[in-house]
Amino acid sequence: MTSTGHLRILGLGPGPLAWRTPEVETALAEAEHVFGYTPYIARLPATISAQRHASDNGDELLRARAALQLAASGARVAVVSGGDAGIFGMASAVFEAIDQGEAAWRDLDVLVLPGLSVMLAAAARLGAPLGHDFCVLSLSDRLKPWSIIERRLQAANHGDLALALYNPASQSRRQQLEQALACLRQGRGDETVAMIARDIGGADERVAITSLGALNPADIDMRCLLLVGSSTTRLITRPGRAPLVYTPRHYP
Amino acid sequence: MTSTGHLRILGLGPGPLAWRTPEVETALAEAEHVFGYTPYIARLPATISAQRHASDNGDELLRARAALQLAASGARVAVVSGGDAGIFGMASAVFEAIDQGEAAWRDLDVLVLPGLSVMLAAAARLGAPLGHDFCVLSLSDRLKPWSIIERRLQAANHGDLALALYNPASQSRRQQLEQALACLRQGRGDETVAMIARDIGGADERVAITSLGALNPADIDMRCLLLVGSSTTRLITRPGRAPLVYTPRHYP
Repeated sequence: MTSTGHLRILGLGPGPLAWRTPEVETALAEAEHVFGYTPYIARLPATISAQRHASDNGDELLRARAALQLAASGARVAVVSGGDAGIFGMASAVFEAIDQGEAAWRDLDVLVLPGLSVMLAAAARLGAPLGHDFCVLSLSDRLKPWSIIERRLQAANHGDLALALYNPASQSRRQQLEQALACLRQGRGDETVAMIARDIGGADERVAITSLGALNPADIDMRCLLLVGSSTTRLITRPGRAPLVYTPRHYP
Repeated sequence: MTSTGHLRILGLGPGPLAWRTPEVETALAEAEHVFGYTPYIARLPATISAQRHASDNGDELLRARAALQLAASGARVAVVSGGDAGIFGMASAVFEAIDQGEAAWRDLDVLVLPGLSVMLAAAARLGAPLGHDFCVLSLSDRLKPWSIIERRLQAANHGDLALALYNPASQSRRQQLEQALACLRQGRGDETVAMIARDIGGADERVAITSLGALNPADIDMRCLLLVGSSTTRLITRPGRAPLVYTPRHYP
């Protein structure tokens, strides 16, 4: 039987509704089932009629398989991520499940609907720290060896690339951040601009501008994104206003 | 005199209104003047009352200064980019103008409003090629020396990072793409997944999935974004549907 179901993998954007695309709002309204990490399910519009399937962080593959199963049985299913689903979000987990799963899942009508990425929202709050070439890494070694993370940090140092670092630390995972900072300080120098963006778009939003040398790892938790400048990243100080950080379009 | 004007630097998102955030729509409705590259000004809603100031590609700093001047004189001004203004967009140009410009410009109420980036929209059309660590580079050597571009490509090769390459070529700038491809083929091997995304969200949208070895530079023009996989990027073939490309969350 050819399924009439479909799967939409979508990004809610960080925080406020003003950052959610109309395309995503429409897909949520059309869905019969929505799957996602519990805090993202909590952010769904109260008005949608879909059945909500909340699950924990770390259950991505199980969540993806359950969503695919329902879609293959004929239901209109959405899988949600915060920010954009394509950047350290659910899209790769769903495709991994399709790649390894039932042949029927390849027949499904599957689309990724892009969302506003938290890294772009964080950068906007700070100015334009990612306004020139940059690199996006997750510091979590849950799914990859630390050696590849270190190699990528060194590569970013060698290329003098600004950095957006996802998952910089959690309550239990602290040592990796210390090692990453040591690698970055060695490659870039203590004066390099460093920025902490926490809960962007949420109730506890805050941004802090500091330097690699002065950055205190204790200020970073799992709700933070850590941004690091290149050698050209600059601060504009302003009387009575927060400084602006930007990476110029020109390279000397 | 303290100015009552403001400046909003905003990203229209690529193409369709369904990809534009409500925050940006509101800012456009409130603006008295909107500055931008001619094709982006053409994409503004017909309903807004703002005076439109269209200018050519390459005039970014002049455009930024004119916008700042008007905002400092008390007007509500918006500067628009396609996609997100913080990624190779107008945000860095405006901050460069503030950094080098009149002291009064530092007193201005300036905000960046993030938008849906074309690279995330392109990735979504293809699957999730940027679903793991990646690097974002512009191949244009208009504002930086080719040596730094080559160094960054080599760094990305060394770190086995997926790539989103902006400005891969223009009508007159062809040689750089050949050099970049040679560097990528040498560092990654001919079998690496390569993807061309053209005019995403526009009337001429198309995506093509190929390999570094098979990629034909003649298929790339200034409206293209070039995506390149890491060693782990995979293709899911599907009967009767386009393949999906994804970079797994796991690293072997």
